[in-house]
Formats: sequence, C-alpha cells, structure tokens
Amino acid sequence: MFVVVNLKSYACDPVEIASAAADVADDVDARIAVAPQTAHIERVASTGVETWAQHVDSIEHGSHTGQSLAESVADAGAVGTLLNHSERRLKLADIDGGIHAAKRAGLETVVCANNPAQIGAVTALSPEMVAVEPPELIGTGTPVSHADPDIVSEAVRTANGVDESVPVLCGAGISTGDDVDAAVELGSEGVLLASGVAKVDDPRAVLTDLVTNE
Amino acid sequence: MFVVVNLKSYACDPVEIASAAADVADDVDARIAVAPQTAHIERVASTGVETWAQHVDSIEHGSHTGQSLAESVADAGAVGTLLNHSERRLKLADIDGGIHAAKRAGLETVVCANNPAQIGAVTALSPEMVAVEPPELIGTGTPVSHADPDIVSEAVRTANGVDESVPVLCGAGISTGDDVDAAVELGSEGVLLASGVAKVDDPRAVLTDLVTNE
Amino acid sequence: MFVVVNLKSYACDPVEIASAAADVADDVDARIAVAPQTAHIERVASTGVETWAQHVDSIEHGSHTGQSLAESVADAGAVGTLLNHSERRLKLADIDGGIHAAKRAGLETVVCANNPAQIGAVTALSPEMVAVEPPELIGTGTPVSHADPDIVSEAVRTANGVDESVPVLCGAGISTGDDVDAAVELGSEGVLLASGVAKVDDPRAVLTDLVTNE
Amino acid sequence: MFVVVNLKSYACDPVEIASAAADVADDVDARIAVAPQTAHIERVASTGVETWAQHVDSIEHGSHTGQSLAESVADAGAVGTLLNHSERRLKLADIDGGIHAAKRAGLETVVCANNPAQIGAVTALSPEMVAVEPPELIGTGTPVSHADPDIVSEAVRTANGVDESVPVLCGAGISTGDDVDAAVELGSEGVLLASGVAKVDDPRAVLTDLVTNE
Repeated sequence: MFVVVNLKSYACDPVEIASAAADVADDVDARIAVAPQTAHIERVASTGVETWAQHVDSIEHGSHTGQSLAESVADAGAVGTLLNHSERRLKLADIDGGIHAAKRAGLETVVCANNPAQIGAVTALSPEMVAVEPPELIGTGTPVSHADPDIVSEAVRTANGVDESVPVLCGAGISTGDDVDAAVELGSEGVLLASGVAKVDDPRAVLTDLVTNE
Repeated sequence: MFVVVNLKSYACDPVEIASAAADVADDVDARIAVAPQTAHIERVASTGVETWAQHVDSIEHGSHTGQSLAESVADAGAVGTLLNHSERRLKLADIDGGIHAAKRAGLETVVCANNPAQIGAVTALSPEMVAVEPPELIGTGTPVSHADPDIVSEAVRTANGVDESVPVLCGAGISTGDDVDAAVELGSEGVLLASGVAKVDDPRAVLTDLVTNE
Repeated sequence: MFVVVNLKSYACDPVEIASAAADVADDVDARIAVAPQTAHIERVASTGVETWAQHVDSIEHGSHTGQSLAESVADAGAVGTLLNHSERRLKLADIDGGIHAAKRAGLETVVCANNPAQIGAVTALSPEMVAVEPPELIGTGTPVSHADPDIVSEAVRTANGVDESVPVLCGAGISTGDDVDAAVELGSEGVLLASGVAKVDDPRAVLTDLVTNE
Repeated sequence: MFVVVNLKSYACDPVEIASAAADVADDVDARIAVAPQTAHIERVASTGVETWAQHVDSIEHGSHTGQSLAESVADAGAVGTLLNHSERRLKLADIDGGIHAAKRAGLETVVCANNPAQIGAVTALSPEMVAVEPPELIGTGTPVSHADPDIVSEAVRTANGVDESVPVLCGAGISTGDDVDAAVELGSEGVLLASGVAKVDDPRAVLTDLVTNE
C-alpha cells in the first residue's frame, strides 16, 4: 500500500504535514510520500519523509528556463514524481520524455490518467506506477472507490492487459481508511490524496486512520 | 495499403494535388487520402478524393472559439483526421478526446507518435490506425523504412501487443514506391507522405510510382 | 459600428446565419461579419457576407500540420480574423506572430483581451482593432455594457493611451440594440456577439434590432 | 545597473555561483540576482545572494498540481521572478496573472519579450521591469548590444511610450563589462545573463568584470 499526499498549492504548512507523515510511516510501517510545491522539496525532504515532486519537465541539462529538471528535484531530496496529473495534463510525448528524465535522475514515477483507456496508454510507456483519478471526483470528498468502483477495477484490468508489472493506484475523494480498503479490494495498490490530508486540522490522525484500517 | 498525403501548410495547390490523387486512386485501385488545410477541406473534397483533416479538437458543439469541431470538418467533406502529428503534439487527454470526437462525427483516425512506446500508448486508445513518424526524419528525404527500419518493426510489434486490430502506418522521408515496399515488408499497412508529393513538380507521377510499385 | 458574429462551435446552420447577416448588412448599410468554423469559411463566404476566421496561427507556408495558415483562410474567403479569444488564449509571441501572419495575408485582426491592462498590451502590437470581453460575462445574457460599464470605458482609455488609432470593440452578453447603444456610449466602436445571434430562432430579427437601434 | 544571472537548467553548481555573486555584489556594491531551478531556491537564498525564480504560475493557493505558486517561491527565499522568458513563453493572460501573483507574494518581476512591440505590450501590464532578448542571439556569445543595438534602443523608446516608470533590461549574448557598458549606453538599466556566467570556469571573475567595468 502506497499513499501519496499531494499538497498541490494549498495554504498548508508543508513541513508540519511532512513531519506527521514521517511519524505515521514509521509507526505503522506504511509507505507514505508527500508531494509539496517544488520550492518546498528541500525543507520537506529534511523531515525525513519520502518526498515526491508534483511534476518534472521533459528536459535535460541545458538552456531551459522556468522548467523543472529531474536532476534538480532529485538533488533537493525528491525520490519520485507525479506526471500528468489532471491539473497538469501533459502532451503524450512529454509524458514519455518525463518518464525518461525521471529514470535518468533516479526518480520513481506515478503517471496519472482520467479513465481506463488512458491508463492503458500510460502503462505502455513503462512508468513505475499509474494512477486513475476521475477529474470530476477530485476534491469532492466522494471517494472514487465508492462513487465509481468500475473505473478502478477496469483501470486495473486495462493496465494488466498492457503490462502486468505496473501497479495501479487510484485517487479522487479518498479520505478514510475505509476508502483505502475499498480501493484495495478493487485491485488498487495505493492511493493519491490531497485535500483529505492537506486541509484538515489533524493530518496525523487522518493519515493514521488511512494506513492502519486496511 | 493506405497512403495519406499531408499537405501541411505548404505553398502548393491543394486542388491540383487532390485531383491527381483522385485520378491515381481510380486508375490503380489504391486508397489515397489528401489532408489539406482545414479551410481547404471543402474544395479538396469536391474533387472526389478521400479527404482528411490534419487535426480536430477534443470538443463538442458549444462555446469553443478557434478550435476545429469534428462535425464541421465532416460536414465540409472530410472522412478522417490525423491526430497528434509531431508538428501538433497533443495532451494525452486530448488525443483520447479527439478520437471520441472523431468517432462521434463519423471520422476515421490515424494517431501519430514518435516511437514504439508512444505507439503502444496511442494504440491503447483504440483509434482506427496509428502511425509512427520519427520527427528527426520528417522532411529529410531519407525514408524511415531505410534509415531506421527497427523503429517500424518494433512499432508494429508494440501495437500488436496492445491491440492487434489496429494497423500501423509509418511516415517520414517516404517518397518512392521502393520506400513503400520496404515499409510494407516491415509490417506497415500504409504510409504518410508530405513534401514528397506536395512539393514536387509532378505529384501524379510520384503517386503513381508510390502505389503501383508495391 | 462593426458587429462580429462569432459562431464558435455551436450547433447552428452557418449558411443560414450568414445569409441573414448579409441581408441585414445590405438593408441597413451596417458592417456585419460572421466568424464560422474554419472548415465552413468557404461556404459562409459564398453567401456574400463579410467572413472572418476565429483564429489563425503564427506560422508561414511550410511544415506545420494541424495549424491554420492565414493565407489558407484568406484563400477560402475570409477577410479578417479574431485572435486571442478568451476561449483560445494565445502566448504573447503568438498574438504578435498572428497579427503579422494576418497582415501578410491581407486579413484584418480583432485581438481580444480580458481586461483593460491586457487591452493596453495588445494595442501595443498594432492590430486593426481590439475587443474587451470579460470572460465571466460571456454567454450570460448580461451585457458587459450594463454589468461592468467601467471595464469598457477604461479599456477605451487604456487603448487610446497606447495608440489612439486602434478602435475598441466590446463583447460578452450583448444581444439587443440597447446593449449596442450602451456600448457605443462607453466609447466602443463595435461589438462581438455569439449565442445572442447563433442560438436564437430568428437571427435576422436579432441582427436587425442590433444595427438599427443605434 | 541590475544583473540577473539565469542558471536555466545548466549542469552548474548553483550554490557556488550564488556565493560568487553574493561576494561580488558586496565587494563592488552592485545589484546581482541569481535565478536557479525552483528546487534550488532555498539553498541559493541561504548564500545571502538576491534570489529570483525563473517563473511563477498565474495561480492562487488552491487545487493546482505541478505549478509554481508565487508564495511558495517567496517562502523559499526568492524576492523576484522572471516571466515569459523566450524558453518559457506564456499566454498574455498568464503574464498578466503572473504579475499579479508575484505582487501578491511580494516578488518583483522582470517580464521578457522578443522585440520592441512585445516590450510595449508587456510594459502595459505594469511589471517592475521588462527585458528585451532576441531569441536568435541567446546563447550565441554575440551580445545584443553589438549585434542589434537598434532593438535595445527601440525597446527602450517603446517601453517609455507606454509607461516611463518601467526600466528596460536587455539580454542575449552578454558576457563582458564592455557588453554591459554598450547596453547602458543604449538606455538599458540592467542585463540578463546565463551561459556567460553559469558555464564558465571562474564565475567570480566574469561577474567582477561585468559590474566594475561600467
């Protein structure tokens, strides 16, 4: 079970959430990563939590301004990166290029997609993991595993049809351990969360519930 | 064997090339389509040639300005559309949406991609056909089937691994019947051409050579 | 007074609206242009109405697939083009390049922008006209000239401060002659309309009201 | 005189260059800023050098993944940001939105543009500074102040015509104090550099030459 907490550009304290996540991960021996703003990667990584970028660009060292180089985020402490989140949809060629950039820099990748067909597509590009997130459920508090269970199980089926070695995560509306359990039953090997952790009063309690209930 | 002649935004006479293609297709019973500028679809279709769009947007009827609706190009006479050409790379979600838009309007699709991994990805989206075109060979006059035969055969293999019902075309540098033969031997079921037909003095002769030599 | 009817990608009959616009323009000696889907430019132009494109790309003749060349839309009968509509926002460099492409092909330009500061910016690029359209009012039926009159008068003031020779149009929610009158009183020299003409039962009656009431 | 050193995504040591820039700025009482990768802002700022971002997005706190929030880069230590560099061209509306985001977070802005007309456009958006950089000279080692002096003086004239309170910087090919002097004589109040500092053996010597020669 892999839990990725996407801090987006929320008005939260990334270090406080990262510390809570690091503690919970230690306590219950779960894998929890936090994906902060790129400018906050260094301070988040210094908490000891597994730190991910929200995006890297399909570039190498060179003349590229205002883009995020995989080596730079790795250097700052990230060990993985999301790609193609529904709030940062990428050109197909740049998903492919971003996966290569991440591999070059030693970063794992979770490539997001909206539906099972697109999950099949991104699985064909050989990322470490893929994640299905129906955009219409993001931020709703209605977990994808209840609102649209078929989309999760069909995404798992489609991904396996292309490459069985690529695990499928799911996201959108996940906020409790029950949601996580439901996701796991549908074949998901992890979840993406955001507001359910980043915008609550006690992220530690939420994270503990998430990873111990399973 | 399916030949798509992409007129790009070349300074050519689209009607002259379309008429030549219509004649050659009749004479030798080959399938040849011409993909002109969107504004020229109507006049190209009026020659009787099979007419394709170079692109349609992932939209429905509604409030969308400056985008090309699949129904509009179908209305003007197109029966298919290219998508994700390397000169018009799309977001993954928009390739998926463009394929759906095209199906809704009764248009066939050829989805282009740069390399075998991306060919696998777009095949997972269930277009009618896919086309591998290494960007570095486009416009060179060096046919992909000679310069990089492995990319074609690997693209065919990858596409078949995802969905065997989707034929693979290839493009870049194709200009003679020998190039077409080589492409067919590698498993390609068609070719994309552009400058090799659009920028020559006698497009009819080139097209005849292309489709009779096989 | 210049009236531009943007047909967007509405499910309307472009030729019927174009014919109505051509008739009204003749009857009352008003300037009315219709901006259809690019694939419909040829048939709209054949009605005799002043025909505009909704967009052209910042390209020249050459290897560009799936983009709209200014010369092609001119060839099909367009005499002008919108640029940077809020539903097709462009990079600054591409607004500049689009204006140059349009001039090269003999097309007039109306460059849209969301607010007075952006109107100042696009006026500095020397298009034929600019148009202020607050995105939040588009399609509402609440005319910008009533809902936010200051935005129109301030846009006029800002544009004049940069280059007094560039007329300012306005758009969003315009549907009656009274709306047009209000816009003119605020310094606007024309209006952009869309649903107010394209989605009504009797476009001829609406257009007549629009241009005779002033 | 304001010198901005853009580290792009070069394979350089950002802390080493930042330390050199901090020392030179202290020694000669010059204003020198360093713009590293976003993930490196925190470590660069910790050297005491004036630290700038290469880009911020036109967003507020909220649900935005993979975009750079102005408050986050400010938080990490940046006091300004480039916008619309020719390697990261933005939509006009996003330049406007990026300037607003930067002001909200207390960041200064230098908005880049390719030519005098675009400089006039971005000046109308009221950034702190603008910078003209002809893309064809970037990275050439041929300084814009020698290769195309008219573009600099015309940019200054155009910017002043729109808003005299906005200083004009210039960039592309600048690497010596003589280049800087020439830029100043043309009306420029600062320079943007990149490879001339980031890819040399002794950045301290280059920076000293740049700011003491004037």
